[in-house]
Amino acid sequence: MPTILGQNQYGKAENRVVKITRDGDTHHIKDLNVSVSLSGDMDEVHYSGSNANVLPTDTTKNTVYAFAKEYGIESAEQFGIHLARHFVTSQEPIHRARIRIEEYAWERIETSDANSKFIGADEVKHSFVRQGQEVRTAQITFDGENWEVVTGLKDLTVMNSTNSEFWGYVKDRYTTLQEAYDRILATQVHARWRYNWTSDEDRLPNWEKSYAQARKHLLQAFAETYSLSLQQTLYQMGSRVINSRSEVDEVRLSLPNKHHFLVDLEPFGLKNENEVYFAADRPYGLIEATVLRDGVEPRIPVDMTNL
Amino acid sequence: MPTILGQNQYGKAENRVVKITRDGDTHHIKDLNVSVSLSGDMDEVHYSGSNANVLPTDTTKNTVYAFAKEYGIESAEQFGIHLARHFVTSQEPIHRARIRIEEYAWERIETSDANSKFIGADEVKHSFVRQGQEVRTAQITFDGENWEVVTGLKDLTVMNSTNSEFWGYVKDRYTTLQEAYDRILATQVHARWRYNWTSDEDRLPNWEKSYAQARKHLLQAFAETYSLSLQQTLYQMGSRVINSRSEVDEVRLSLPNKHHFLVDLEPFGLKNENEVYFAADRPYGLIEATVLRDGVEPRIPVDMTNL
Amino acid sequence: MPTILGQNQYGKAENRVVKITRDGDTHHIKDLNVSVSLSGDMDEVHYSGSNANVLPTDTTKNTVYAFAKEYGIESAEQFGIHLARHFVTSQEPIHRARIRIEEYAWERIETSDANSKFIGADEVKHSFVRQGQEVRTAQITFDGENWEVVTGLKDLTVMNSTNSEFWGYVKDRYTTLQEAYDRILATQVHARWRYNWTSDEDRLPNWEKSYAQARKHLLQAFAETYSLSLQQTLYQMGSRVINSRSEVDEVRLSLPNKHHFLVDLEPFGLKNENEVYFAADRPYGLIEATVLRDGVEPRIPVDMTNL
Amino acid sequence: MPTILGQNQYGKAENRVVKITRDGDTHHIKDLNVSVSLSGDMDEVHYSGSNANVLPTDTTKNTVYAFAKEYGIESAEQFGIHLARHFVTSQEPIHRARIRIEEYAWERIETSDANSKFIGADEVKHSFVRQGQEVRTAQITFDGENWEVVTGLKDLTVMNSTNSEFWGYVKDRYTTLQEAYDRILATQVHARWRYNWTSDEDRLPNWEKSYAQARKHLLQAFAETYSLSLQQTLYQMGSRVINSRSEVDEVRLSLPNKHHFLVDLEPFGLKNENEVYFAADRPYGLIEATVLRDGVEPRIPVDMTNL
Repeated sequence: MPTILGQNQYGKAENRVVKITRDGDTHHIKDLNVSVSLSGDMDEVHYSGSNANVLPTDTTKNTVYAFAKEYGIESAEQFGIHLARHFVTSQEPIHRARIRIEEYAWERIETSDANSKFIGADEVKHSFVRQGQEVRTAQITFDGENWEVVTGLKDLTVMNSTNSEFWGYVKDRYTTLQEAYDRILATQVHARWRYNWTSDEDRLPNWEKSYAQARKHLLQAFAETYSLSLQQTLYQMGSRVINSRSEVDEVRLSLPNKHHFLVDLEPFGLKNENEVYFAADRPYGLIEATVLRDGVEPRIPVDMTNL
Repeated sequence: MPTILGQNQYGKAENRVVKITRDGDTHHIKDLNVSVSLSGDMDEVHYSGSNANVLPTDTTKNTVYAFAKEYGIESAEQFGIHLARHFVTSQEPIHRARIRIEEYAWERIETSDANSKFIGADEVKHSFVRQGQEVRTAQITFDGENWEVVTGLKDLTVMNSTNSEFWGYVKDRYTTLQEAYDRILATQVHARWRYNWTSDEDRLPNWEKSYAQARKHLLQAFAETYSLSLQQTLYQMGSRVINSRSEVDEVRLSLPNKHHFLVDLEPFGLKNENEVYFAADRPYGLIEATVLRDGVEPRIPVDMTNL
Repeated sequence: MPTILGQNQYGKAENRVVKITRDGDTHHIKDLNVSVSLSGDMDEVHYSGSNANVLPTDTTKNTVYAFAKEYGIESAEQFGIHLARHFVTSQEPIHRARIRIEEYAWERIETSDANSKFIGADEVKHSFVRQGQEVRTAQITFDGENWEVVTGLKDLTVMNSTNSEFWGYVKDRYTTLQEAYDRILATQVHARWRYNWTSDEDRLPNWEKSYAQARKHLLQAFAETYSLSLQQTLYQMGSRVINSRSEVDEVRLSLPNKHHFLVDLEPFGLKNENEVYFAADRPYGLIEATVLRDGVEPRIPVDMTNL
Repeated sequence: MPTILGQNQYGKAENRVVKITRDGDTHHIKDLNVSVSLSGDMDEVHYSGSNANVLPTDTTKNTVYAFAKEYGIESAEQFGIHLARHFVTSQEPIHRARIRIEEYAWERIETSDANSKFIGADEVKHSFVRQGQEVRTAQITFDGENWEVVTGLKDLTVMNSTNSEFWGYVKDRYTTLQEAYDRILATQVHARWRYNWTSDEDRLPNWEKSYAQARKHLLQAFAETYSLSLQQTLYQMGSRVINSRSEVDEVRLSLPNKHHFLVDLEPFGLKNENEVYFAADRPYGLIEATVLRDGVEPRIPVDMTNL
């Protein structure tokens, strides 16, 4: 047989689980999309179709729902740790489990004023509106010995309406771009950060707090950087997270430059003083880089998009 | 010629315009997606290809950008009124203009603490994060005499984790559904409401305030209704807007019932006490209705989706 | 109560049903997405939440699957007729049923050559690849007496690389467009056509043949029209269907002008002789019109898009 | 500075270029979406914002369009080779270029019969309909010395309506799945294959023919494999390509198991003999693996999706 099997993995993707927790009349929601991916001693199923080592993907789905009851969902990361540990330790042929999770945030619906003629505020501790801004992501990998947790976010769209320039670049035969001394800088943040927690013997990070803080630092670094290039802003965003969060060793950022072009209004006898922009779809600049704590080996794959 | 031309309209769709307004160092954003649709004396261009009556769609695009400078964008509705009036009054062959607008909301990025080592808060009055919840919509139609303004929103996802029942329904040969006395009720609100402002002689509504209030009433009515069916909730949402906002005469709502199915955990020896749900994609219930101020003729088309 | 209920409808949307029919070893697929929408005596469920007249949407879903077995799926239209008739005639409170269907076409995978070393061609009469071009649509409405069938297609993307011009149009203060004497004309066809079959007493059209022929005429009219405007092309497409298919009385077309802009290569010392184009996303022209058999009343709603 | 820069890359993504080639009256289309990604001596732009080494992404866009004229587009791969070579050899700070391309296929619109009353067939050698099945992909990487070309496809949806089983798998506490001896097997093929061409000194593959053949082998292997698991089918697909195409050394496949569940019709007194299926959206099994020519090192990244 002149061909051989290389890396392989399988599981059930996109298990949509919603967990309601009741604290008296006050309800709490966790809303996740969980994907399970398992690897191990799986040559035979590829070569001959024998499923003797294969835990069905349907079973991995069932496990997600059962664990939501058995362990609750304290955080996406903690939930993924429970799942990954289970698959690797309970099934001999499975040597590695990777759990990927998307989390959708919900906030409470603000209720009527106290003197409302409608049902009172104490009745609506179970009403939510989906927050809708970024999607939080988490990837938990376990090989029976070491853990890797990579948390992140995507679709967080931000804009600075000034404090961005772009000039002093290389010019070749195909360069027509005019230098810009005051432009809009907008991007849709896609970030992943890797924790230096790798062993059950180490103290666990506070996943919820760490996420909230990393998100805050990304936003603030974007807002507070006077930008000469999107690369510079990216580096500030990544290093701000690492400098502020000792539990994080590596950040990978993928930042599309969502171009806002100043519209030429001169043909209509109007002057456009950085007021009216055309928000373009495609093409867009795409700036991607890893920022690392000094001395650390990078582990987050470089490609977070197919484009 | 055995065929004739019926209703027709044309224009440039999805003009993405971003307007920055400067109030000293503080910037404000309006971020719109504007679609222009014109009708009138357009038989010839269909029958023979003569463009003698056709203002190019490219010109309608230019007009959107020029008007963002000339008139500013006070509100989506006011901007649409400027555009619709222009096309109908400046071009003899155009008898009717309809402007459709989507608006994307942005909020300011919270800045660093006062004692931050980074750039101070007063530097970041130009930094924004896209709000990401619902998309606001507006449709402004003018025929040279009368105005019709229909405002709305879409993609506002809400959930009640209790206070919803469904029972006492018709059962036929194909009915297998079990009655539910405590279920999740979730939907993605798609709403349109029509203003009773129709004439330049009447006092204009405060479009921004009216939108904020209508949105609030939709959310609160959803949260505060103890629901025996999604139809009942829908009617409460629509009538709350009309009862609270005298400027609105008609509301059309399209509410998908985003099913959250209680997962059967008994095979695993677990009891699911309304805790763990599977969030399904398709199929979904789809509940649609118009709510009207008594005595008013409906005008909003009944189909807001193709499904 | 100062508000009243207007038009309302409900049902289960997007029931994905796949039907395999076996003709000996040769299998046939029908792959549909069926949405049910029912109207009638439904005031109470909106006003009080009483479900006494409500056949659950879950039951309408079950009916779709049961009917796929009981009646088979000869065509989307015929399947919709069975469903609509059932709901209106079997449930007294239901006065009107509308069934909307999307159909996805599949073609057979071409098998190995006769002298293949692999499994023979007669083994693969059950292997298919999704055709992927247009989505076929059908809407069947029944009020207990009269039928309305509107068939259509969407997402059929076509291009003429020449034989299109655009000039002689109105020029106003905001016009900057240059006239074009040889341009690309591309669009994504969204069409609906209404049949004049309305009564069980009339002879049924051959739905499958009629669809194939209407589709062919749309494509050929697009290809064979030397176009001075997209409106002219649209009218040719619609009238070709009506002139060629006596069972069709009305066609509504929504044609986005998918702009392909000639790239200016002069800055690079190159001449672009209608060779290199930028395919733009937004904005786009949007041309919409109805074409009618002379003497016929239009019934297809004018808005097939929200933009 | 406690943080350092890791891998980084930048460029213009999603340049939509359409190239028309005229062969007398007969036109040919190439329709690509080209993304450029450059790496090299780029520390400064990240650390200080100096753009002294940065060729603007706008210039990379211009180069795509200029090269479509200068070199034509013989194949996606050949076009990517021209671009990658240019960036690496013409700009000293750029050490590596990666070009990613999506290609959309078009076919000719069949014209009227010879005795048509419309314009003759020889007039419509410039009319096309987008094929719409799979998207072809190509990734070309050059570091100044070695080439890597990875071609592929995505969104090719296939189904076997029989000849698929699934049984004999591991059963644990969470397993409820029933064994299946005749099921539908459907997937949406996402494939990438790597060529062993790496040097300008080696003979180039015939890219167009190689693509057509690899696609054919993927389809036929899917159709002709009697499947005991999707893993087995995957391996057959990958090894068929390698065994049939000596220019390919490695194939990576990502195959979602698009579940078609047999609908339980017994509550309605009906028997479902593998006829009526519910096509589910989420969750889905996800099977991924690499197939290699024996002795070859894998290079295609294992994750082709974020889930």
